Amino acid sequence: MNIENWNPAEIETRSFEIITEELNEQGIVLPEDLAPIIKRCIHTTADFDYAKTLTFSEGSIERFMKLLQDHATIVTDTNMSLSGINRRALTAAGCSAVCYMADEGVAAEAKERNVTRASVSMERAMNLSGPVIFAIGNAPTALITLREYYDKGLYEPAFVIGVPVGFVNVEAAKELILNTGIPHIINRGRKGGSNVAAAICNALLYLNERNA
Amino acid sequence: MNIENWNPAEIETRSFEIITEELNEQGIVLPEDLAPIIKRCIHTTADFDYAKTLTFSEGSIERFMKLLQDHATIVTDTNMSLSGINRRALTAAGCSAVCYMADEGVAAEAKERNVTRASVSMERAMNLSGPVIFAIGNAPTALITLREYYDKGLYEPAFVIGVPVGFVNVEAAKELILNTGIPHIINRGRKGGSNVAAAICNALLYLNERNA
Repeated sequence: MNIENWNPAEIETRSFEIITEELNEQGIVLPEDLAPIIKRCIHTTADFDYAKTLTFSEGSIERFMKLLQDHATIVTDTNMSLSGINRRALTAAGCSAVCYMADEGVAAEAKERNVTRASVSMERAMNLSGPVIFAIGNAPTALITLREYYDKGLYEPAFVIGVPVGFVNVEAAKELILNTGIPHIINRGRKGGSNVAAAICNALLYLNERNA
Repeated sequence: MNIENWNPAEIETRSFEIITEELNEQGIVLPEDLAPIIKRCIHTTADFDYAKTLTFSEGSIERFMKLLQDHATIVTDTNMSLSGINRRALTAAGCSAVCYMADEGVAAEAKERNVTRASVSMERAMNLSGPVIFAIGNAPTALITLREYYDKGLYEPAFVIGVPVGFVNVEAAKELILNTGIPHIINRGRKGGSNVAAAICNALLYLNERNA
């Protein structure tokens, strides 16, 4: 195996070509509007399973673009996801991103109430002014909390990227969002992660730039 | 599917039990000393492929533990990996972690010399005093640069975690480290990522705590 001498931009282009070729070989045809998001998840993981498990609510792409135009705040449930979101593209869109997981106040409140930090972080996000996009790559309890507030009529999330990874409560928590009218991109099954949550945000930010 | 009411620590324990059960069902027997690292990669990705592709140089675990005792610096090639490394465990081990990728000086030098920021970041790391553990989850050029300096006899990395993800140069760059005497943990093939690099560091930090 030899090293090919390409610059980073060329490598990304070539990577997406390879992904497209291999999807074709597997007989998988992606809907044109969703392809950039699905391919970026495959690019981030080298895992073609995402072509089969990523699930988009109707009109989710347009909805996300509208939220970016409305200067939405992306709220993540890990600092890893926050680090992975492309700052340049985010700033260019006039949007911002935050994560409350490492806040001391969040940890203290979670301990006192015997709930998870992710759950308290979601409540903090609900108090933000302006629209909020939830990008959840880790904690099922984040999705569970959002559904609880939604069911009580206390809060309606503008958008949920629901891609926690794991073996306990992860699939069930994703179903909780799939079963609602909340605009979403969910990866069914066990897979996902902070990297996938960031990749989905970035794919949509890049799409927004191309459309601008 | 129902939500099971467990706290985060219980969920982690149960997750590892499920991983162990499913490895058994698949007839996969992991070497006892490597199992905590391999299982944590599966835990982070929900991808059992890691049981087949993670490759450890002989004595790599003991070597890594020795480097932690010697207060090694972990150098990552993404801020995502840096964010994913458990700060509490790292500090408890008396170690530190850095990433040079977002440094303005690194970007300027990379542009001037027409090399990648990852390549320049590796050179910065080589000038650190004390032992360095390279945790590479993204950039093949980081591994290529390490091998170039190694071949020229200019630098011998104390340890390389080599788990870039991707479709171009990734597999070849991993082979470049596998073919040397450099102590390593490499994930053969296309898969890996910043999350996997952090998971390997954390698995070894937790192992170090248990051994203390």
